[in-house]
Amino acid sequence: MSIPFRTVALVGRYQSDGVAGTLAEIAAFLRERSVSVVVEEDTAAAIGRTDLEHATVDEIGRHADLAIAVGGDGTMLGLARHLARYDVPLVGINHGRLGFVTDIPLEQWRDALGPILEGHYTSEERTQLTIRVLRGPDEVWNQVAMNDVVVSRSSRAGMIELQVHVDGVYMYNQRADGLIVATPTGSTAYALSANGPILHPRLAGLVLVPVAPQALSNRPIALPDDARIHITVVEGREPRVAGDMQVFSDLQVGDDIIVERGPHRARFLHPPGYSFFGTLRSKLNWHELPILSRN
Amino acid sequence: MSIPFRTVALVGRYQSDGVAGTLAEIAAFLRERSVSVVVEEDTAAAIGRTDLEHATVDEIGRHADLAIAVGGDGTMLGLARHLARYDVPLVGINHGRLGFVTDIPLEQWRDALGPILEGHYTSEERTQLTIRVLRGPDEVWNQVAMNDVVVSRSSRAGMIELQVHVDGVYMYNQRADGLIVATPTGSTAYALSANGPILHPRLAGLVLVPVAPQALSNRPIALPDDARIHITVVEGREPRVAGDMQVFSDLQVGDDIIVERGPHRARFLHPPGYSFFGTLRSKLNWHELPILSRN
Amino acid sequence: MSIPFRTVALVGRYQSDGVAGTLAEIAAFLRERSVSVVVEEDTAAAIGRTDLEHATVDEIGRHADLAIAVGGDGTMLGLARHLARYDVPLVGINHGRLGFVTDIPLEQWRDALGPILEGHYTSEERTQLTIRVLRGPDEVWNQVAMNDVVVSRSSRAGMIELQVHVDGVYMYNQRADGLIVATPTGSTAYALSANGPILHPRLAGLVLVPVAPQALSNRPIALPDDARIHITVVEGREPRVAGDMQVFSDLQVGDDIIVERGPHRARFLHPPGYSFFGTLRSKLNWHELPILSRN
Amino acid sequence: MSIPFRTVALVGRYQSDGVAGTLAEIAAFLRERSVSVVVEEDTAAAIGRTDLEHATVDEIGRHADLAIAVGGDGTMLGLARHLARYDVPLVGINHGRLGFVTDIPLEQWRDALGPILEGHYTSEERTQLTIRVLRGPDEVWNQVAMNDVVVSRSSRAGMIELQVHVDGVYMYNQRADGLIVATPTGSTAYALSANGPILHPRLAGLVLVPVAPQALSNRPIALPDDARIHITVVEGREPRVAGDMQVFSDLQVGDDIIVERGPHRARFLHPPGYSFFGTLRSKLNWHELPILSRN
Repeated sequence: MSIPFRTVALVGRYQSDGVAGTLAEIAAFLRERSVSVVVEEDTAAAIGRTDLEHATVDEIGRHADLAIAVGGDGTMLGLARHLARYDVPLVGINHGRLGFVTDIPLEQWRDALGPILEGHYTSEERTQLTIRVLRGPDEVWNQVAMNDVVVSRSSRAGMIELQVHVDGVYMYNQRADGLIVATPTGSTAYALSANGPILHPRLAGLVLVPVAPQALSNRPIALPDDARIHITVVEGREPRVAGDMQVFSDLQVGDDIIVERGPHRARFLHPPGYSFFGTLRSKLNWHELPILSRN
Repeated sequence: MSIPFRTVALVGRYQSDGVAGTLAEIAAFLRERSVSVVVEEDTAAAIGRTDLEHATVDEIGRHADLAIAVGGDGTMLGLARHLARYDVPLVGINHGRLGFVTDIPLEQWRDALGPILEGHYTSEERTQLTIRVLRGPDEVWNQVAMNDVVVSRSSRAGMIELQVHVDGVYMYNQRADGLIVATPTGSTAYALSANGPILHPRLAGLVLVPVAPQALSNRPIALPDDARIHITVVEGREPRVAGDMQVFSDLQVGDDIIVERGPHRARFLHPPGYSFFGTLRSKLNWHELPILSRN
Repeated sequence: MSIPFRTVALVGRYQSDGVAGTLAEIAAFLRERSVSVVVEEDTAAAIGRTDLEHATVDEIGRHADLAIAVGGDGTMLGLARHLARYDVPLVGINHGRLGFVTDIPLEQWRDALGPILEGHYTSEERTQLTIRVLRGPDEVWNQVAMNDVVVSRSSRAGMIELQVHVDGVYMYNQRADGLIVATPTGSTAYALSANGPILHPRLAGLVLVPVAPQALSNRPIALPDDARIHITVVEGREPRVAGDMQVFSDLQVGDDIIVERGPHRARFLHPPGYSFFGTLRSKLNWHELPILSRN
Repeated sequence: MSIPFRTVALVGRYQSDGVAGTLAEIAAFLRERSVSVVVEEDTAAAIGRTDLEHATVDEIGRHADLAIAVGGDGTMLGLARHLARYDVPLVGINHGRLGFVTDIPLEQWRDALGPILEGHYTSEERTQLTIRVLRGPDEVWNQVAMNDVVVSRSSRAGMIELQVHVDGVYMYNQRADGLIVATPTGSTAYALSANGPILHPRLAGLVLVPVAPQALSNRPIALPDDARIHITVVEGREPRVAGDMQVFSDLQVGDDIIVERGPHRARFLHPPGYSFFGTLRSKLNWHELPILSRN
């Protein structure tokens, strides 16, 4: 628990107001503690601080001991998609609206970072998905996702029909606006809007949640995360597939989409005392208030 | 795959019409194949066949190589609660209404049993839960469950409030008609009525599903099945807890209910080609028909 | 809009701490404005103020121009069940936990009552249900309800099966923990816990919402409120029926339950600017926060 | 109940195989009964029978006593949108997949049409919605809808935010994939997929159902159908609005969408004995089977 973080990388959602200032303050805070700071190259360019030491995400992966993301969950998950293979842990400071995985509120970053740098933290691993689109013998697209894979129709007029096999066994044909395959991390994102259950991050599972399914008897199904999910596009105008919102819009009827757990896991560090359930309660108002009277 | 089943036990839901005849036919079918047959003692008494070799469930556990349940899911799960510790596999022949785990239809038992006896089957393991009710230092009740634990109010006038901790961490206070903790096996039983997700039998998970929760923001949550679930009764007139419908009605405000995965797993044998998804489709009408038109 | 309220009745949930004091203050407040005050007799006895002019609820119905309920929604709805036939309007001051129809917060009663007494208010009518239980030719129970009728099983072990006809036409057989028939007023109470939709108070409709229905294809159905709903108890151990939680526990298999809109409507007065949607947002956290991030 | 239908119009979904033959048979069937037959002009052209008497939909509205739609629900509802103002009743013969309002199965048209022509039928009225899009002072689009109005984002990447007022009172801001305003007719179409309740056709109501709403506390709300619903597009890339799938894709942030009950109602004739509930059961598998076992 006393791993020294000698080199720390900073990555920011530079479109946001004020991120540049926060990043500079964090850089100073780290240097005061004799930590080497490297700034992700696009971040450095965007905040006009090319004077700082900067590096590509891959270089960060190879050389940094820790990466700090300042932004929203999108920033953090984007970084996690790349760094998982290098086993560089991430800390998220929330500069966005919600912040589910970026659990450190902006105004508390000093109080949170200090203990983490000294090795006091809770570590949590998060599964990744790999997505491949096959057209006959050819792989025409692939993507890694931390949250979810979404296969959907593009336009209102109509729906999409998908055939799903799991580990080679036929599961169902789904006619819907779309179908979400979510990790535990993604179970509190889009899948939750579509009436999916919450999966605890430590559950070795995935969940399939349809969006606006035509069958009344639909229910989400949770599968072991070593399942191989094979989705075939049966019908649908302008179908599309996205992994963490990175869209492949050239999806075609007949294409096969293979979703599997990726070989790497992202590692998130949280301040001591972090509670996933606490995040659910505070960010989702989950059960916080028993609110319906019955008498 | 060529395990010889030398001794096979028969257990029947003897209240059902016709079960006696089926049991006798199965016994004859087994003896023709040189298999020793032993009938569970209550079953033997109920069908008036004390001339047959009979045994207690524990004796069956110690001596039989296979147990065949003829009845509904309740018969099968009741047997599984007892036999899991002995690692005796079960086959279920459906003599009831639905038959979710008793997957062999009554009229197909001959076709199904033949191959199974010759070692051609699909084997599936199912988790058990142990439930303990603690009142201060004393354990006042315990039970094993294959499907679910249900903590509920007894009467309409009111609700129950429960506080739930998972692995020692506070999760939520739940005000509802009741709270279900279901295994994958139980996820297609009462939990499904209460709007829970389906859990694949191979998923190492549990799901907590409230019944008529007062908070609008409620969602079921799936947890890893090695989680220790601690439920405290905060409020509620005549609360009660049940494991697979075996009720403890002396539950009191302040009692602690500890739910954990049991040390044993039941083993179910299915005919070759068995598909859990096929069962979902045929027994639950799950997604069988895309039925809503949109144009 | 300038109706003078010459005689005002006070009714309080006397079990609550502090209600006696609030009632005395309201009585003084009213007398200062030359309004005659009469206290409901049980309320007067409970707060030990039999020196005040007191009356039965029926006398209040015949003689009062307005009734003020101090307590929770139960107090208000109980009063409304009795006063609807007399067309005495009600004002609700919330002394309980939630307060959905008792919309005036305790600490604001002075600011709210003043304008109402001067005729500045929003008036809202609420439908009642009549419930009759028929056993062959005999009516064995009847009840009026403002919120809902709930037919349910009494105990966990099992479910209830109900057959439902609407205006003489067969609708469905429902197997569930129970079935709720809710008015718009009741649609935000127990029916909402059971996943029912919200009905606007001005909608001339009712909604049927099952609790934990066995059929996956279930959906709540909203009917015109002049529909005659006929529920027959087909199966179930110790079934029961309740109207606004007033329970008839001697319900039997074979009994017929007839639910119809009652001939009277309760009238609630709200401070100017009252908004039903505002109540939904503040009391139910309904849509207040867009809370899920997707990126 | 003995209205003679002297002139009957035929309209067919001519893309479907076999519709031409069915239309010719129906035409012959009608003429045998001395009924004048007129074929909608596009239908006549499509089936290559311009020798038949043909007319525009408006001419049909002015001159026909009855219109028979052969096709799916889309054909029937499209016709109903046009004929409601002329009060020409419609009969629907199902040549499509589901057929919810086109309730006469293709193979039964002879048995069904005979009695209807003799005045033996059940008549049912269905509400229409009018939709207007206002951009500042200008109305930039309008549409009539039998089923629903859907306001949605066009693409996966993102969501739409809508602000909704009802009768001039603020209701909520909704962040979601889309928002559906459905008539009772539409409540069994797309709104049902999005988890909306069923509204009985005789209920004077509408229902607002969000698709994949971000707020966990969301619930559908049913409103009286004389409500004026005002939806403002607050945020969203490429938003769009559709009435019965007729899309206006030039919707812009800041546009106001006004949805109101239209001045006309469509009239559908059904064979005697028609039951809305029966249609729910047979077409949606609604509650047909109590399917979950609990023991």
